[in-house]
Amino acid sequence: MNIPKWKEVLEASVRISSVVHHTPVFTSSAINSVTGSRIFFKCENFQKTGAFKFRGASNAVFSLDEGNAKKGVATHSSGNHAAALALAARNRGIDAHIVMPESSSRVKKAAVESYGANITFCAPTLESREKTLDDIVGQTGAIFIHPYNNPRVICGQATVARELLEQIDKPDIIMVPVGGGGLLSGTAITINNLSSGTRVIGAEPKNADDAFRSFKTGILQPAPEPDTIADGLLTSLGPLTFEIIKRYVDDIMVAGEESIKIAMRLIWERMKIIVEPSSAVPLAVILENREFFSGKKTGIILTGGNVDLDNIPFLHASPKG
Amino acid sequence: MNIPKWKEVLEASVRISSVVHHTPVFTSSAINSVTGSRIFFKCENFQKTGAFKFRGASNAVFSLDEGNAKKGVATHSSGNHAAALALAARNRGIDAHIVMPESSSRVKKAAVESYGANITFCAPTLESREKTLDDIVGQTGAIFIHPYNNPRVICGQATVARELLEQIDKPDIIMVPVGGGGLLSGTAITINNLSSGTRVIGAEPKNADDAFRSFKTGILQPAPEPDTIADGLLTSLGPLTFEIIKRYVDDIMVAGEESIKIAMRLIWERMKIIVEPSSAVPLAVILENREFFSGKKTGIILTGGNVDLDNIPFLHASPKG
Repeated sequence: MNIPKWKEVLEASVRISSVVHHTPVFTSSAINSVTGSRIFFKCENFQKTGAFKFRGASNAVFSLDEGNAKKGVATHSSGNHAAALALAARNRGIDAHIVMPESSSRVKKAAVESYGANITFCAPTLESREKTLDDIVGQTGAIFIHPYNNPRVICGQATVARELLEQIDKPDIIMVPVGGGGLLSGTAITINNLSSGTRVIGAEPKNADDAFRSFKTGILQPAPEPDTIADGLLTSLGPLTFEIIKRYVDDIMVAGEESIKIAMRLIWERMKIIVEPSSAVPLAVILENREFFSGKKTGIILTGGNVDLDNIPFLHASPKG
Repeated sequence: MNIPKWKEVLEASVRISSVVHHTPVFTSSAINSVTGSRIFFKCENFQKTGAFKFRGASNAVFSLDEGNAKKGVATHSSGNHAAALALAARNRGIDAHIVMPESSSRVKKAAVESYGANITFCAPTLESREKTLDDIVGQTGAIFIHPYNNPRVICGQATVARELLEQIDKPDIIMVPVGGGGLLSGTAITINNLSSGTRVIGAEPKNADDAFRSFKTGILQPAPEPDTIADGLLTSLGPLTFEIIKRYVDDIMVAGEESIKIAMRLIWERMKIIVEPSSAVPLAVILENREFFSGKKTGIILTGGNVDLDNIPFLHASPKG
C-alpha cells in the first residue's frame, strides 16, 4: 500500500503554502477551567471553503501533471470535500465534476456552485453516488479524487499538524476527529516524524464508531448504521487510512451525542467561533475523560465551520424588517 | 467638560495591557468581493467577557486609588458593561454591585453571576434602574462607573483603535457602532492623535438614530422609541460623549434592520465567527453605501459576540441524545 512518505508531506506543504490560509491557534481560559486541561485549538474552520479539506484537495489538484490536469477532476461528496475540490480546481483553471445527493443542503449546493463546479445530482445512496461518478468519469476522463483514501489528499491534510507544531511547543496529545481517516492519517504521519513524544488520538462519535472498532480489533469494518449530529464523520475508514492509523495512531476514543452538543456549544459560546459538530468531537472526548486529559497539553484541530445558518431564527432577513 | 487627553489614553493602554486580550484582525475575501471594498475587522468579540467593554471597565477599576477601590464599584446595565465591570472588579479583588432589569436574559445574568458580582434586580425602566442604583451606592459607598459617559471608560475604549493602527497600515476610514458613544468617542480621540488622515465614522441603526440626529443638528437628543435588533445600541449619547463626537468624529451613518441582519449573517457565514447584531451595523452601512466605500480601506471594530445561543436549535443538549 502506498503509505505517504514524510518527504511527500514536505512537498505538499510547499505546493499548497501560497493557496491555503495559515490558520490561527486559539485558547480559552474558560474551557481550560471547565476541563482542567490545557487545550490549543487549531482553527481550520477559518480555512478557505470553511474546512481543512481544502488542503488535501489543493495538494491533489496541484500534484497532477499537465496532461491529467486537463482532464479535470471529479468526486462524489455532499460535504466539505466537494467545495474544497471545486475551489482547488478553479484555482488551477481546470474542470471539477461533483456528484452530490439531491438531499444535500441548499447551502452546500450553493457553495459548490459558487466555485464554478459542474454538479450532477444523484439519489442519496452510496450505490447511486458511485454509479453516477463512474458515468461522469467515463464520459469526461476526469481524474477521481477520493476524499480521504488518496495519498496526495492525506499529505495535504498532514500539513495542518505540521503548522500546529510550529505554533505550540511540544503538545502531550494531538487529537482530531475521525470519519474517513484522512486527517487522522496525515496528522499521525506528521507527529511520527516531528514529535514522537506526542500521542495521536482519534476522536469519534460513539454512534458512528467504525474507526474505534476497526482499530481495537485490527479488522476494517464499516459502521452499520451511523447516526450522529457530527455529519462529517458518517463515513468509514478506507484501506489506506486504516493501514496508516494502525501503524501510527496511539488510540481512538469515542464520545456520545450529548457531549458533542455540549462541547459544540462551549466552543461557540466561549470562543465566539462557529464550528460544525464534527469539530466538537475531540472536546467532547475530553469532557467524558477529564482525568485522562487533566493537566495535559492537548492540541485539537477544529476541522470546519460549515453549518446551515438557515436554522438560526435571528439571522433571517425578513420582508418586514 | 473633562475631555480625555491623549496622555490618558496612553496611560490606559499601559494600565490594562496585561489584563486584556490583544485581539486579532480578520479579513474576508468573500466580504470584500461582495462589498467592493477592503475591510479589516478588529475582533473585540474575542475580548474577555466577549466585548470591548472590558477595556473601559478595566481602566476605570484600575484607575481608582486604594481608598476608593475598597468601596467597590457599581453600575446598572443589562448587557456587556455589567459583565465587564464584574470581571474587572474581581481582577482587582473588590466588590461589584450590578443592577440588572429582571427581564435580562438568562445568559447575561449567568455571566455576571459567574464573575462573582452582587446582582440586584429591578423593574425594566430607566427610572427603576437609577433609583435602585442610587440606593445601593447610598448603602455601600460603591463608586458608580457609568458605561460610557466616563472619561476613564472612554480612555479604555480608545485603546482598541490604538491597537488596530498597529495592525493595519493607514486606513482611509475607521467605522464603529454608536450607542452611548463610549467606543466612538475613544476611537475618535485615538485617530485624531495618531492618524489624522483617517476618517472616523459612527454607524447606527436607523431605528435608534439619536446619535445621527444629535450629530446632524448639533443638539443632544435621545432616541424616542428605539427599536432595533442591535440591542447594544438602544442607549443614547451622553453629554461627554456627544461633546467628543461633535469635536472629532467626521460623520455618522445609519443602516436599516434588513441590512443589519444580512451583514450579521455574512460575518457568521463567511468569517465563521460569532458577533452580536450591534457589531454588524458598520458592515450594514457599507452594504447600503457601496459607492462611498468602494476601493477604500476600512477598519471596523466588531464590538462583541454575546448572543443568546438558547435560540439555536442544534446547540441544545437534550435528555434523549
